Amino acid sequence: MNKIITIGREFGSGGRELGRRLSEELGFAYYDQEIISELSKRTFLSEQYVQAIVEHRPSFSFPIHIGQSFYALGNPAFEQTMNIYKEQARIIAEMASKSDCVIVGRCADYILNDYNPFRIFVYSDMESKIKRCREKGSESETLNEKELRQKISGIDKKRAKYYEFYTGHPWGDKMNFDLCINTTKTSVKELAPVIAKLFQSFSI
Amino acid sequence: MNKIITIGREFGSGGRELGRRLSEELGFAYYDQEIISELSKRTFLSEQYVQAIVEHRPSFSFPIHIGQSFYALGNPAFEQTMNIYKEQARIIAEMASKSDCVIVGRCADYILNDYNPFRIFVYSDMESKIKRCREKGSESETLNEKELRQKISGIDKKRAKYYEFYTGHPWGDKMNFDLCINTTKTSVKELAPVIAKLFQSFSI
Repeated sequence: MNKIITIGREFGSGGRELGRRLSEELGFAYYDQEIISELSKRTFLSEQYVQAIVEHRPSFSFPIHIGQSFYALGNPAFEQTMNIYKEQARIIAEMASKSDCVIVGRCADYILNDYNPFRIFVYSDMESKIKRCREKGSESETLNEKELRQKISGIDKKRAKYYEFYTGHPWGDKMNFDLCINTTKTSVKELAPVIAKLFQSFSI
Repeated sequence: MNKIITIGREFGSGGRELGRRLSEELGFAYYDQEIISELSKRTFLSEQYVQAIVEHRPSFSFPIHIGQSFYALGNPAFEQTMNIYKEQARIIAEMASKSDCVIVGRCADYILNDYNPFRIFVYSDMESKIKRCREKGSESETLNEKELRQKISGIDKKRAKYYEFYTGHPWGDKMNFDLCINTTKTSVKELAPVIAKLFQSFSI
C-alpha cells in the first residue's frame, strides 16, 4: 500500500510549507491546490467557486456522519456542497491510490483512514502565526495587528467547523494524530528533514 | 541557561522510557524517582508516603493558582500536601539549575517555564497502552483486561486532576507542549534518537 502523510494545520503555523518540504525530502507526490483544480475540471465550476465551497461546511447544522440525506431534500445548495465534498473525497482517494503522497488539509486524515496514513497536525501560538503571515506578505500586508489576528482566528474557526461537520471529530484533537508539532520555537525548514526521519520510525 | 526537556505522559504510553532514552542520547541528567528520594530526605517522610501525596491533588477543590491560603487554614493535611508540592517544585528548580536534564511528569513543564523547556507530551491509544503494560509485566500481570483498562484510565484521571489543580491548565492540551507524540504505531527505542535530533532543531 502507498505511504501517505496527511497534514492538518492551523492557519499561519507553517503546515503547508512543512507538507511541501516533506514531499521533497521523501520524494513523495504533493497535493494541495491540485485537488481544487481537479475538482473544478470534474464539476465544470470555477476554481474560485470550488475553493469557497470546500472551505465552508454547508449551512445545515446536522453532521453528515450521522446521515441526513432526509434534511437535504429539496435544498440544491446543500446538495451541491455535499456532492463537491464527495467528489473531493473521491479525488483524494484516487491520488492516494496512485503513489506515495503528502496531502494538506481537506479531512484527508479521515478520508484516507484505510491507508493508515501518518497524520501530522501543525500549530503554533498567535504571535508566531502573525509573524509568519507578515513574512509571507500578500494580503496580510494591508491588515493591521487586530485585523490580522481576527483573520487568523476566523480561518481556524472555519476549518474547525468544516472538519467537525465532515468527520464528526473535534478539529486538532491530538488523539486523531500521530504527531502534533508546535512550530512557535522552530523553523519549518530545519524541521522538515527530521520529521522525514521520524516518519520512517513509524509503522505506516 | 541549561537545556531542559520535560515529559508529560499518559500511563502506559512509553513516556518514561522515552525520557530515559533521550537523556542517554543527549548526555543529559535524568530525574524521575530521584525527585521522590530527595523529597523524602528533606521532609523526613517515607518515600511511599511522599509518592502517594505527590500523585494526588489535595482534596480541596480550589486550584492553588488562584491562591487560597485562606481555605487551608486549620487543615493540616492540606497544608502538608501543599508544602510537599512546594518542596518538590523547589527540588525540580534546583535540578534544572544544576545541568541539562530530562524531567518526567510532576508539572515540570509548568514549574520550569522560565527555563524555556522543550515540552513533550506522550500518549497512545488504549490497546497500545495495555500491550505495553503487559510487556512490562509486574503488577499488571494479575489484572484481567477490564481491570487493567480501569487501572490505566484511573491513573490518567488522577494525573489530569493533579496537573489541573497545580497549573490551572488542562492536562495534555497540545498548546502547552512543543511536541505531542502518539506512540501507538512506533517503538520508543526507534523514536528516541530522532526526537533527540528534533529537539536540536528547536530554539531552546
